[in-house]
Amino acid sequence: MSLATDPLLAPLPATLPAVTRAARIPAGFEAAGATAGIKASGNPDLALVVASDGPVPAAAVTTPNRFAAAPVRLSRANLQATGGTAATAGFARAVIATSGSANAATGAAGDADQAAIGEAVATAVGCSPAEILHLSTGVIGTRLPVDLVTATVARVVGGGLSATDGAIEAAAVALRTTDSTTKIATVTVHAPGTDGGEVPITVTGIAKGVGMIHPRMATMLSVLLTDATADPATLRDLLAGAAAVTWNQLSVDGDTSTNDTVFVLASGRAGAAPASTNGGARAALASAITAVARDLARQQAADGEGATALITCQVSGAADDADARAIARAVVASSLVKAAVHGRDPNWGRVAGAAGNAVVAESATLEAAGLSAEDARARAGQPAAVDPAAMRIAIAGHLVYDGSQGGPVAIDKDVVREAMAGAEVLVRVDVGLGTGAGEAFGCDLTEGYVRENSEYTS
Amino acid sequence: MSLATDPLLAPLPATLPAVTRAARIPAGFEAAGATAGIKASGNPDLALVVASDGPVPAAAVTTPNRFAAAPVRLSRANLQATGGTAATAGFARAVIATSGSANAATGAAGDADQAAIGEAVATAVGCSPAEILHLSTGVIGTRLPVDLVTATVARVVGGGLSATDGAIEAAAVALRTTDSTTKIATVTVHAPGTDGGEVPITVTGIAKGVGMIHPRMATMLSVLLTDATADPATLRDLLAGAAAVTWNQLSVDGDTSTNDTVFVLASGRAGAAPASTNGGARAALASAITAVARDLARQQAADGEGATALITCQVSGAADDADARAIARAVVASSLVKAAVHGRDPNWGRVAGAAGNAVVAESATLEAAGLSAEDARARAGQPAAVDPAAMRIAIAGHLVYDGSQGGPVAIDKDVVREAMAGAEVLVRVDVGLGTGAGEAFGCDLTEGYVRENSEYTS
Repeated sequence: MSLATDPLLAPLPATLPAVTRAARIPAGFEAAGATAGIKASGNPDLALVVASDGPVPAAAVTTPNRFAAAPVRLSRANLQATGGTAATAGFARAVIATSGSANAATGAAGDADQAAIGEAVATAVGCSPAEILHLSTGVIGTRLPVDLVTATVARVVGGGLSATDGAIEAAAVALRTTDSTTKIATVTVHAPGTDGGEVPITVTGIAKGVGMIHPRMATMLSVLLTDATADPATLRDLLAGAAAVTWNQLSVDGDTSTNDTVFVLASGRAGAAPASTNGGARAALASAITAVARDLARQQAADGEGATALITCQVSGAADDADARAIARAVVASSLVKAAVHGRDPNWGRVAGAAGNAVVAESATLEAAGLSAEDARARAGQPAAVDPAAMRIAIAGHLVYDGSQGGPVAIDKDVVREAMAGAEVLVRVDVGLGTGAGEAFGCDLTEGYVRENSEYTS
Repeated sequence: MSLATDPLLAPLPATLPAVTRAARIPAGFEAAGATAGIKASGNPDLALVVASDGPVPAAAVTTPNRFAAAPVRLSRANLQATGGTAATAGFARAVIATSGSANAATGAAGDADQAAIGEAVATAVGCSPAEILHLSTGVIGTRLPVDLVTATVARVVGGGLSATDGAIEAAAVALRTTDSTTKIATVTVHAPGTDGGEVPITVTGIAKGVGMIHPRMATMLSVLLTDATADPATLRDLLAGAAAVTWNQLSVDGDTSTNDTVFVLASGRAGAAPASTNGGARAALASAITAVARDLARQQAADGEGATALITCQVSGAADDADARAIARAVVASSLVKAAVHGRDPNWGRVAGAAGNAVVAESATLEAAGLSAEDARARAGQPAAVDPAAMRIAIAGHLVYDGSQGGPVAIDKDVVREAMAGAEVLVRVDVGLGTGAGEAFGCDLTEGYVRENSEYTS
């Protein structure tokens, strides 16, 4: 096989629509970012997104952490109240996000704080408190300054909300904590219209990283807005499916936060056919949501605390997709792989060691990714199938391990090091056992990560 | 409850016999450490342990990594050949350990190398190659210098083996790779003798760390020797049970090695009743093996790459022991907790976040710890029960979180920081739900870890 044609030396073929990182607000939404004074730095720390014409279908994926924060629990309760059945799909008029305090592990007082904020937002925009979704991020165990937040909400709703692209960007800025970049992704695709033709639908996502990120519904904070049409249950299924192959394949530091949440709201303003009943509309919306989620996950990985490199691991030839995702996740989560990438050391032994240690995810994630409940239960927590004699590994476009040829491949280390010098390092693994494929995203482990997190004031 | 009597502010009561870290070789064994020239540094890199009078019962716990190294696979095959049934218990005459090259991911050539070494040892000591157990540690993907190893084996067996305490210490020194300390632990307890009275039995363990250590039969390299009497299957059960609550509760960096192995060999020279049929002898041997394993695991955690502190997390009040161990493991494995301890920051929010994210271990580990196969299968991969309103957390003897009192406890951070200044930081968690207890061992995450592992030559 010539080097030029070996698919192991290149990324997996793209299957998702193209993404732009420009801010673009979908029709039917207004947004704002503001400074309430939660952050000592004086940086923007309050984001508000409002559905212009009233409550719209909404869905959520939230952390499985048993210490789920007050905003997470209140959002679940609100979606349950407006959706009638599940705790993760219903109707929402607005999303309020505060940054600087997580309002986690704050007991009944923290619950009361979050409820008071919800009531203030509901009063300001004119809806029920149950139609408000909540996000919060920052230090665990500190109370939110409710008065500052509610005063800022009144001020923003009174004059700061806007349906401009700049407004969604301002909201994204206000989400940031230790993020060094503002994270926005937009996809526009065509979907069947209600009138029979095709119409463009847009999905725009904003997100924040950048620590306490790990699979197990690791989503960090993100809000996705779309002008497509879908009922709550469909939104929930599409969001969970997208998260299973994107945010659940993202690891920065192995910790799953108490506050991880992603919301999607659909205004229906594009005039597209309902994704709930039209297969073409559903497929278009699914691909757009997944593409936005994937790009935001990559932005989060690249901006991992202290990181100097985005590590993308793409796996082909696995026994099935669940195994491929497990192997990819094990590689990007390995401290030794992360440290090796930091030193731009083509240490394939650590990649092999991590791949050989891969364990398939929990059943809930497998179900979200499409497995039956029974199959998911049987697979959860089981080792991924790996045969050292069948595996091949390439780092930054260079074959470094070929099990069928005895293992180690002679390489010019300086050449591979140079290929690893960029902002993204691609690790390709072909398992050689089947047709399963998957990918995961992480970042290198640096002295900067340690410094940032050992000096962080609790 | 007064601070002086709150059990949360102190370690869990000790249940195991006392351990000494002095080298003491049990009767019936000889050992040696030597320099074969595998390590470029010229440090000792070959350890040999020989049962003086012929093959003795032996058992192993080995890595579940699919990239299990040549020495791991050969040891399993040898135990199967001599034990007749399982791959982890049989008879052995000698253990050969090489340090500096892992002989992992080296294909058929690596298997042939390891077999040649086994034949050389067998010839030198006068036994079958199947009676040789193998350990190797070091860089993945490099070949062992077989000629250097076999020449050194011949030289050592010809005149270097000794039944002195200094000899087992020399073997422990030769096991080291990046270890900064030599790891030895010895326990002597009384057991029923074959003559009806009581006799002292001794278990001595040597071990190496210090990277690529994580639960999932995370054992690193270790050899336990005892003069007690037990058949192979009993040794295997006692070793697996001990590993489940000690080495499986040890995490340095989240990576499970390709070479992790622990062996136990029993010479029977103490004149104790057989642990296989005498309940008192079994209990005595079990407690001694567990105490040695626990102490070696603590030495390995304390000497984790770049570490400045041993983190011990002890959990009480869990729904059951499996949950307690899962919570303890999640806490010591959390990058954020590890970084906070490095900064001596009493960041209990990260402890709570990690505890809330705990997932019970794999079924094999649960079975080794005493659950039925059915119960183990049902529990594996499931979240541990945690209720934020019931949990209490103490760091270094100071109560920092009390869920029943609304959560955060007002503390003088400088006082707690000072209490965290020592070489060991105790994190105590009471789950408040039941009577389950467990512990886990880890270390802080430092710039030194990153430096050491990003500059390591692959």
